[in-house]
Amino acid sequence: MINDLYKSSLGLLTDLYELTMAYGYWKQNCRDDEAVFHLFFRRRPFQGGFVVAAGLEAVIDFLENFSFSEEDLHYLSGLQGSDGKVLFDQGFIDYLKDLQFSCDLDAVPEGTIVFPYTPLLRIQGPLIQCQILESVLLNLINFPSLIATKAARVSLAAEGDTVFEFGLRRAQGIDGALTGSRAAYLGGCDATSNVLAGKLFDIPPKGTMAHSWVMIFEEELESFQAFAEACPNNCVLLVDTYDSIEGVHHAIQVAKEMEERGQKLMGIRLDSGDLAYLSKEARRLLDKAELQHVKIVASNELDEMVISDLKKQGAKIDVWGVGTNLITAKDHPALDGVYKLSAIRKPSEEWKYRLKLSEQMSKVSNPGILQVRRFYDDRGNIADALYDIHTDLSKGGTIIDPFDATRSKQLGEDTKSYDLLVPIFRKGKCVYEKPALKKIRDQVQKNLKQFHEGIKRFLNPHQYVVGMEKSLYDKKIQLIQKVRKR
Amino acid sequence: MINDLYKSSLGLLTDLYELTMAYGYWKQNCRDDEAVFHLFFRRRPFQGGFVVAAGLEAVIDFLENFSFSEEDLHYLSGLQGSDGKVLFDQGFIDYLKDLQFSCDLDAVPEGTIVFPYTPLLRIQGPLIQCQILESVLLNLINFPSLIATKAARVSLAAEGDTVFEFGLRRAQGIDGALTGSRAAYLGGCDATSNVLAGKLFDIPPKGTMAHSWVMIFEEELESFQAFAEACPNNCVLLVDTYDSIEGVHHAIQVAKEMEERGQKLMGIRLDSGDLAYLSKEARRLLDKAELQHVKIVASNELDEMVISDLKKQGAKIDVWGVGTNLITAKDHPALDGVYKLSAIRKPSEEWKYRLKLSEQMSKVSNPGILQVRRFYDDRGNIADALYDIHTDLSKGGTIIDPFDATRSKQLGEDTKSYDLLVPIFRKGKCVYEKPALKKIRDQVQKNLKQFHEGIKRFLNPHQYVVGMEKSLYDKKIQLIQKVRKR
Repeated sequence: MINDLYKSSLGLLTDLYELTMAYGYWKQNCRDDEAVFHLFFRRRPFQGGFVVAAGLEAVIDFLENFSFSEEDLHYLSGLQGSDGKVLFDQGFIDYLKDLQFSCDLDAVPEGTIVFPYTPLLRIQGPLIQCQILESVLLNLINFPSLIATKAARVSLAAEGDTVFEFGLRRAQGIDGALTGSRAAYLGGCDATSNVLAGKLFDIPPKGTMAHSWVMIFEEELESFQAFAEACPNNCVLLVDTYDSIEGVHHAIQVAKEMEERGQKLMGIRLDSGDLAYLSKEARRLLDKAELQHVKIVASNELDEMVISDLKKQGAKIDVWGVGTNLITAKDHPALDGVYKLSAIRKPSEEWKYRLKLSEQMSKVSNPGILQVRRFYDDRGNIADALYDIHTDLSKGGTIIDPFDATRSKQLGEDTKSYDLLVPIFRKGKCVYEKPALKKIRDQVQKNLKQFHEGIKRFLNPHQYVVGMEKSLYDKKIQLIQKVRKR
Repeated sequence: MINDLYKSSLGLLTDLYELTMAYGYWKQNCRDDEAVFHLFFRRRPFQGGFVVAAGLEAVIDFLENFSFSEEDLHYLSGLQGSDGKVLFDQGFIDYLKDLQFSCDLDAVPEGTIVFPYTPLLRIQGPLIQCQILESVLLNLINFPSLIATKAARVSLAAEGDTVFEFGLRRAQGIDGALTGSRAAYLGGCDATSNVLAGKLFDIPPKGTMAHSWVMIFEEELESFQAFAEACPNNCVLLVDTYDSIEGVHHAIQVAKEMEERGQKLMGIRLDSGDLAYLSKEARRLLDKAELQHVKIVASNELDEMVISDLKKQGAKIDVWGVGTNLITAKDHPALDGVYKLSAIRKPSEEWKYRLKLSEQMSKVSNPGILQVRRFYDDRGNIADALYDIHTDLSKGGTIIDPFDATRSKQLGEDTKSYDLLVPIFRKGKCVYEKPALKKIRDQVQKNLKQFHEGIKRFLNPHQYVVGMEKSLYDKKIQLIQKVRKR
């Protein structure tokens, strides 16, 4: 059934209200209206300084296959309203049957470092299509971006050490595990325990042994010897089943026996207790036995904070196994991405810009057809400018802090810059070549280096400057005043 | 690609170390050893008093289809160890090719109310199979049980009001959404916004409208009129795009226009602001206009705590839309389920009982082949007894608090009782008839009624008594002492 489930068409992976609104647009003869929506988030997850965008590959795959199956349409035609009559006319069902994705999509490439209010996606096309796609686009972007961000933080904390992602058993479903493993690798992890993720995404699969192996045998030493014999080229011994230090002694004995057979023990793993103390003691014992090459792997409820702290205490850990806290982003398990209408036009009319009002300025959406330009010099990135694509930024411009208009910044003509959003689809055809996952992963590391250290701090990070280009800001204020007056 | 991904065999949905250990067992001639493992959790999520077991249906489906495809085996045969040589001998790959699930599985039915250390699953069979299945069984049980529990809490807080699950956009992946919607319905929600979940699991799909609908039009009133015309039998108007109270007035005007056409406005939705104040004011205005039948739907970062609090303030909300906080179990996003070996035997030998030691008693696993008996009387459930299946509990018995041996309880011969774990597979064949989801959902509500109110409290809930049957407890202590002496 799980397999069956996923063999099903994903056309209905949307919220009912998207279809209800699509039906309304269709009935109200708005079916040829064109719209622009942006997908962005407002709150920095983990109280951190940045987000690593991810999920675009899945978005492309989804859109290239977007359609409603006969079964989907049959299901929809059976839905009833409060009066027991059908929810959707047959004409609308027929319309959905013929629906083909025909929008333009622009997006920041996976691995781009982004900030609150940066559009991760901009979609322009038939209103009905843009509306139906809202829920699934949010699903496909929010979660991977969250996990890629968490993984980048964990990798920063590990300061170049190897990080294994061990999340399968605590992930939120099968896809929570698979998409999570991909995003974790993209964000900076070196390997995954999840073999299927390894196969599907070409991520190195890694693993050690569990307590059950040790418990099968009468004695720990015997269990280590048996494992070394069975798996000499993949031998990491879990030493904490009974007593970690005794376990290290047993591992050393086995390492010596392996040496005699011309084999090398790869490592030991600590999975409980005081990881700072135990790793230092294990390192001392291993070094004394001239086993400098034997790595120490540690796991047990790790995250970026615990890793940083263990580093500060001088823990001698070479490889960090991170599970639950990474794969569920435990301290902030959802990115608050939203998807907002910003422009609408009737066929052959001008664009009308739109915003969603709120009592809080932070929740008022931005109007227009937006792009983000990143300004940089030889020392790194300076600021991002959110601007309307109809504005010429080639000679620089002024950006304004959207939440404090007294703060502005001039960006000169000769400051180098580039646009973050790139064309992905044009009239429903994919025009983007998806990079290999490994390439994206490398790019994340390069991208992070272009930012001031302050934004990578875990506590009270520096806020990178993302301003609104002045004419866009003025337009927004005008629109707010117009709406409030009404 | 998403579809392709899920069309793939799920055989490799396991952690690499499970396969490495399986390989070790195979090489060490333990391939005919028989093992018993239990899946249980230790910590109560949300600091709550109970957990609703879920996920068994997916487990059954997975096990009925468990196998390695040619592609899986090809992938495994290409994996390399530290020396560049293959990780697995071809003989093992051939062994996996022929592997068929042949274990016995016992489980608590979905919807059973369970507590820390209650086995949710007990698997008995070839050690290699039990080991390989660890990761996926945890994945398939942990997450749905977590969400079903959260949904039960939210439903308790709503005190019989309707609860819609709105989580798709913030769920952890596609399956995070789909499995989450199923679990939320099972735990007590009345409907989902996720249309695909509606189709796949026969859950009522529900929805209202989004701000984008209102923003397409020049005026809110016009947008409401257009929606009422397009969707008269599914009309819930979102009133907070510009000003909630003004929105209510517009909704009332539209409701009156609908009445003239012989139609009924179903409801209005509040999605921001002070929901207590706004709902009371909206109710007052609606009632004054003789629109008592118009329901008030509320959403915006709701969970059981917020709902309880709004109830206390006298909020006039009929339908609660719960999204992110439910679908990600935001305040406790992972159930800490584990899977522990408890008995092992060589062919035609006696069982050897096993436990995993720890410095903390709460982390020492239980030995044996376990069952749980629930004792009850006409007033409800009294206590659960964890016992070994070789012990006769038909004449009652003594149970002991595993963390405080000075506390014990006598359960008399005439106290009524039943076993929680029921046979699911026998020698790899499913012997269990999966109940319909709606039936499970009803059963959860009946099951909850059998427990003292105290365990359903959100703050400092009463701890339901789960004791160890005395001979099992004694056996555990003996084993601990034996291992420590070694």
